[in-house]
Amino acid sequence: MSRILEQMETPALLLDEARMERNIERMRRQVERLGVVFRPHVKTNKSFEVTRRMMSSAQGPITVSTLLEADFFAARGVRDILYAVCIAPNKIDHVLRLQAGGVQMSVLVDSVEAASLLGERLRAHPAGGGVGVLIEVDSDGHRSGVRPESAQLLEIARALQAAGVALRGVMTHAGSSYDCRSAEALRAMAEQERAQIVLAARRLRAIGIACPVVSVGSTPTALAAEHLEGVTELRAGVFVFFDLCMAGIGVCSLHDIALSVLATVIGHQREKGWTLLDAGWMAMSRDRGTASQPVDQGYGLICDVAGRPLPDYILLGANQEHGIMARRPGTAPDALHLPVGTQVRILPNHACSTAAQYAEYQVIAADGQLSESWPRFSGW
Amino acid sequence: MSRILEQMETPALLLDEARMERNIERMRRQVERLGVVFRPHVKTNKSFEVTRRMMSSAQGPITVSTLLEADFFAARGVRDILYAVCIAPNKIDHVLRLQAGGVQMSVLVDSVEAASLLGERLRAHPAGGGVGVLIEVDSDGHRSGVRPESAQLLEIARALQAAGVALRGVMTHAGSSYDCRSAEALRAMAEQERAQIVLAARRLRAIGIACPVVSVGSTPTALAAEHLEGVTELRAGVFVFFDLCMAGIGVCSLHDIALSVLATVIGHQREKGWTLLDAGWMAMSRDRGTASQPVDQGYGLICDVAGRPLPDYILLGANQEHGIMARRPGTAPDALHLPVGTQVRILPNHACSTAAQYAEYQVIAADGQLSESWPRFSGW
Repeated sequence: MSRILEQMETPALLLDEARMERNIERMRRQVERLGVVFRPHVKTNKSFEVTRRMMSSAQGPITVSTLLEADFFAARGVRDILYAVCIAPNKIDHVLRLQAGGVQMSVLVDSVEAASLLGERLRAHPAGGGVGVLIEVDSDGHRSGVRPESAQLLEIARALQAAGVALRGVMTHAGSSYDCRSAEALRAMAEQERAQIVLAARRLRAIGIACPVVSVGSTPTALAAEHLEGVTELRAGVFVFFDLCMAGIGVCSLHDIALSVLATVIGHQREKGWTLLDAGWMAMSRDRGTASQPVDQGYGLICDVAGRPLPDYILLGANQEHGIMARRPGTAPDALHLPVGTQVRILPNHACSTAAQYAEYQVIAADGQLSESWPRFSGW
Repeated sequence: MSRILEQMETPALLLDEARMERNIERMRRQVERLGVVFRPHVKTNKSFEVTRRMMSSAQGPITVSTLLEADFFAARGVRDILYAVCIAPNKIDHVLRLQAGGVQMSVLVDSVEAASLLGERLRAHPAGGGVGVLIEVDSDGHRSGVRPESAQLLEIARALQAAGVALRGVMTHAGSSYDCRSAEALRAMAEQERAQIVLAARRLRAIGIACPVVSVGSTPTALAAEHLEGVTELRAGVFVFFDLCMAGIGVCSLHDIALSVLATVIGHQREKGWTLLDAGWMAMSRDRGTASQPVDQGYGLICDVAGRPLPDYILLGANQEHGIMARRPGTAPDALHLPVGTQVRILPNHACSTAAQYAEYQVIAADGQLSESWPRFSGW
């Protein structure tokens, strides 16, 4: 492996296939145990080769964060897609084109305003009746959605009814799970996410509105949930690669992280203890997600070329194409000297943002050999 | 304009052509006044349409931050390219291919180790003699380079000589100029950058080594320099668009910023004063460059669809595809309510990182009309 890696121009995005497969298998077992439909989120990987390994069938279902993701996977045979961002009016035509092309599309609303507007547009289009509409529920105060106990929840459902649209269901995302700091907190957050969405479904049913889909998901809550009574489907995406943020909250170990950035030593500032790498923030992204965690990993944790962490070395700073590798602040400097040309791997803070900087994954197969390149896409 | 913008799916990257032209003209006048060669940096824009407007001739010269940029512009007729990151051994073959293809390539070293290694590889290749080698000088302790007064500077030059490589010159980048907070500090930093690189050239010449090229550059120092005596060329890139970081250090005004992200209101959390947008960190990048400035602009400053700043509204938080627009912390909430579907523009913290999230610029022409799409590229 290392001879081929050495010839590779850097930076490059490496994907450890065995780790990825193990992460997928872990989630598969959890979903089976919980007895729900799994609707993997493709926003982290944006790659057919990765997503097809996550899906329960070649037709899906999947969750997307952009309509470009929907286009891409629809063109490759996926037939059941949830677009998990509240719908903007300028995207409704696009959704209708996908629906008319034979894809079961589902979209979100979280206001009477959006529900009425959407209802009108769906009614005016021959494919509109097929589009699934879900109400986004706010289970943790994290970003969008209506509170499950609010009057608004019922008003939105009635606005859809008035527009002649049958409600498909309710969904929530416990994004606050990323701030949890213990297994106990994660379990509690998973239960909060479940209880809140089930409450929303129950309140809708109590006023005679059917609510077939009850959808939850985030990688931390998905893996921490003890049971999902009343929930019908689970969404998660970043688990496929994991990252330092997930390791920082205890959802995975460093050895589960399947993505790394291959970089090369290009110089030193010896008196400062700096090793300069050809991977800066363009290669890692500007994501500093571990900055708010107990262990700040800078722009990433440094490993040798085989993937073994170098104790306490992080990417301390980053310019566009320069990375500054150094010992973690507060640790004693040591005598490590990596000659110019030495390759290292850098584990990323956040798989979604780092992967987004690349057009392909360089896959390290289970036998440790560099095997294929898997394309990925970006944009909207 | 606004009718066409309204039909556009969001997020999208808008480029105000008149502002860009004005920024280019400002730099052109400054370069003329300073009497140096201008070698624009393409790392911010990565677009033929933008770069051709910055170049002094269709053949260049230009500065690049990746060899993909070199490939792209070489294929479009540019014949003089400086790769401004110290060369990694795994990139030397690539440089030699470009040189053999008729491009005058220049590369950087900042150690005896790298100089010897590079010298050996250049000597062994028929095109190697043509590659320009510059020594990177550290004028401000910012990242890479050798100090102009160091013994190392002369040792590197001698190592090149021993390898049979003629030194092309010296270069420096005063990256610390981004931390300046006044016009006076910027002028002083520009003079420091100039004085340090001229010192390096003088010391090399004093031991009989020719040093034809003396290169400086950063957008803040380029625009602040009072004179560039002893310098032969100037590099700068971000000036073409400017951004909130540049405005924050007083290098430009908000009205000079040529890039913005078009986004749409998708919901509200009224009791929190939040307006949810369909532009999160994927649309803005994770860059929080203004966080360390006197005015923290969050993930960007909100303007109406015509580009007029909404007083004290910023993108306070960001998830992957969700942006949280709110009044700046510490300001009183007001009664502004933007209905679902309203479009806004967001000025970015950092043009380089935000532009990198997009595959094209949507150009607003001087008459205010949406005119063309200009492609841009990413990666290495």
